[in-house]
Parts: sequence; structure tokens; C-alpha cells
Amino acid sequence: MIGVFDSGVGGLSVVKEIFKSLPNQKIIYFGDTARLPYGTKGADFVKKYSEKITEWLLGKGANVIVIACHTSSAQAGKYLKERFKNIPIFDMISPCLQELSHFNRIGVIGTPGTIKSRVWDAPNVVSKSCPLFVPLVEEGWIDKEITKEIVKEYLKDFNNIEALVLACTHYPMLEKIIKKITKAKIIDPAKIVTQKLKLFLDDESVVPGENQFFFSDEPYNLKKISKLCLGKEIKPIIYDPF
Amino acid sequence: MIGVFDSGVGGLSVVKEIFKSLPNQKIIYFGDTARLPYGTKGADFVKKYSEKITEWLLGKGANVIVIACHTSSAQAGKYLKERFKNIPIFDMISPCLQELSHFNRIGVIGTPGTIKSRVWDAPNVVSKSCPLFVPLVEEGWIDKEITKEIVKEYLKDFNNIEALVLACTHYPMLEKIIKKITKAKIIDPAKIVTQKLKLFLDDESVVPGENQFFFSDEPYNLKKISKLCLGKEIKPIIYDPF
Repeated sequence: MIGVFDSGVGGLSVVKEIFKSLPNQKIIYFGDTARLPYGTKGADFVKKYSEKITEWLLGKGANVIVIACHTSSAQAGKYLKERFKNIPIFDMISPCLQELSHFNRIGVIGTPGTIKSRVWDAPNVVSKSCPLFVPLVEEGWIDKEITKEIVKEYLKDFNNIEALVLACTHYPMLEKIIKKITKAKIIDPAKIVTQKLKLFLDDESVVPGENQFFFSDEPYNLKKISKLCLGKEIKPIIYDPF
Repeated sequence: MIGVFDSGVGGLSVVKEIFKSLPNQKIIYFGDTARLPYGTKGADFVKKYSEKITEWLLGKGANVIVIACHTSSAQAGKYLKERFKNIPIFDMISPCLQELSHFNRIGVIGTPGTIKSRVWDAPNVVSKSCPLFVPLVEEGWIDKEITKEIVKEYLKDFNNIEALVLACTHYPMLEKIIKKITKAKIIDPAKIVTQKLKLFLDDESVVPGENQFFFSDEPYNLKKISKLCLGKEIKPIIYDPF
């Protein structure tokens, strides 16, 4: 069973890719809606709860962990891999860093936490935090003129980038509008990570059981987001183990 | 000592009014940045932490409590007043409800939590949640054309209102731009609440000690917000007692 966690509902955009590539797997999802967003929180806080959640998912029977949250990947990824040495842990960043080395100029957009962590820093990378994108997506304003203007404002310094990394789980939901503003190749890390996961996992036979979606508090606009990501509603289990 | 709490830094707009009206008082502030925002969380969560924070502030020597957070006022105000019967507790809503009864048509804007709580519901009230306003303020986009467009979008159904209540601590920081969109009288509950507080407290002699500002996690953009609200930077104490 694949344990997937995120600070909230955005990780469902990663679940979408897992379902596409590994249709026979089962996932257990934990969205830390009680403590979201991670993107503007301190690194210690993010580490502490990422560790608690990983432990909890393992206790529930997960044997592979996907850190869907980019902030958590940036601030806790390395720590979790050391802390849980025998467990395969996939974060949203390291598989992408390898894939992107051949571009001359890359733009990376993410939460303040992800950008501040400097995990994406490289000579060929320009980065920018876009704190308005998450509330825009959660408000469902994914094709409004205002949203286009905000995207334009955030991307205005990204001249001549060849690729643009959407380093936050919510951002792929703005992909259509982002494509109107930039000609750069859009990179959704969830797709890269899921390919790596596919190489690792055997998807030949159907894993028994049900997919489970836990949230530590009532998720805001879950209906909208799950339809946007998965094309259907999911049944949330509201439970805060911490 | 006045104990003031909020989910984050927005409550500093309430502190601003307290400093103006009661210059001799001392405050102890708690911003629950580790768990912010409250505005999209469930009512039980907000109640639980509002109670914990009130207890903690009383333990630190506060003898009056101001619930600066509107979501907390809406979802936990009544509960806290019952739970701490002997302590004077001021919330952001009840003093305003009395003041506003003479208007024929009032608009109220706040977080999803405040609006969902229906605490503002009345025959003469139309209300709307504006989840993008908080991140706009925290991003410092308080006088951008985009912000004006977003304000316009949110207020488009507020025809013929006589007064507009800014029922979230961040919103007064958008007052200038809101005034460009609506001719309604702008009501900042912090001003009304502070007047009530002034009737209650004797401000004749200087309370000794220092103002203290606690935050349960590193606050995002504190410098910007404290300058905006208080005209100067404050020294945060980062401490999570829970």
C-alpha cells in the first residue's frame, strides 16, 4: 500500500498521476488540513509533522511513502529518508533535479517554504514563491481573467526560461492558464515521481482493499478539488491522530 | 494586562486600535501561526485552540481577553464566555451587532469560517467570504490594480449596501482599495470593540511592563504587517505551548 501525504487536498493532484500509472495499487492518503498550509510555516514545524505522519502511515500498513507536499519534500525529505532508512520514500524534488539538468534556464515556482529552503537552487534556476496560487485554486478561480493577471505578475521576471517547474501540488490545476502566459515546457513533478515509482513497484496484480483518504480536519472545498483532480468525489475520513 | 489572540499576524490591526485608545495598557499577544489560518478550519478545531490559548494567556497574567480573530469570535466566542465566566472576554462580533441594527442593508465580508458560522446572519445583512484577501495582504499587494479587480469581483453582488463590515483582522489593511469600489460606510469592528474596552478599563495610570508578542511558529511577513499596522517592527517570541 502506498502512503501519500500532503498538507491538505493539493496532494490529490499527485494521487491522480499514481492512479493513472499504477492502476492496481492501493493508496492511503493523509492530508494535514488541521495544520495546513505548510508553505508559510517554519522548517522545524514541517519536519516534526512530516515525521509524525510518516510514522502513522507506516503504522496503518503503508510500505512505500510518497511525500506529495513540496514544502515537506524540501524541508523534511532528506531527514525522513535518514530517519526511516529501510522504507522507500519518494519526495517531489530529487527525481526532478536529475531530469532537469539538461535545460539551460529553468523557472521554479512554489510556496514560500519551498523556495526559502533553497533546495531548487542551481546556476540554471530562477525561482519565485507564488502564495496566491493555492487560495486561487481552492477558490476554484482556475480560468478567470484575474487569475491570468496574477500569473502574469508572478512570472514577469521569468524571461527566456526553457522549462517551468510547478513545485506545489496545487499548481498543476492552473496549468492551462500558465500555458497562456509562458512558452516554457511545463514540468509537473508528480509525473516524474510517478514514473520512478512505477519502475520500483510491481503493478502486475491488483492490491486488495480500498483507497483511503484521511484528513486531520474538515477539508475546505474538497468536492471541487477532488473533482478537478480525480474526476470524482472522494469520501473523506476526518481524523487527527496528533 | 490585556490578552489578545489571533490565528496569526492579522490581530495586530486590533492591537493598533488598542494602542491608540488605551495607550497606558500593556498587552500580551498570542498569534497561532503554527495552526493558521483558522478561517478554513472546522469549528471544533477553532474552539479547542481558542480555549487552550485563553487558558495560556490567563496563566501568563492577562486579566482581560480580546479575541481579535473573527473566526474564533464567531465559532468560539460564546463557548469561551461560558467556559471562563469570571473573566471579561471581548469578541469582535457581539459589540458590532448592537451598533449596526440601525442600517437597512449591511454587507459583511470575512473568512469562510466566519461566514459559515452564520453569526452575522440577519434580515438586513448580506455576507460573502473572501478567501483571497488574507494572502493578498500577506503578500503586501495592498494597492495593486489586480487587488482592486479581486475586491470588485468579491463585492459585485453587494448592491445598495449602506455599511460594509470588515469581519477579518486582515481586511482593514485593504480599506483604501475597498473604498474605491464601494460607497458604503466602512466598519472596522476593532474600532467598535476598542471603544467598549475603553469604557470597561481604567486607562488613567501606566501599567508597568513590556508588551509581549508570542507566535506559535515563525510568522510569515511579520515585518511588513507590523509596519503596516503599528508603524514599526515588533520583536516576536517564537513559542508553541501546545
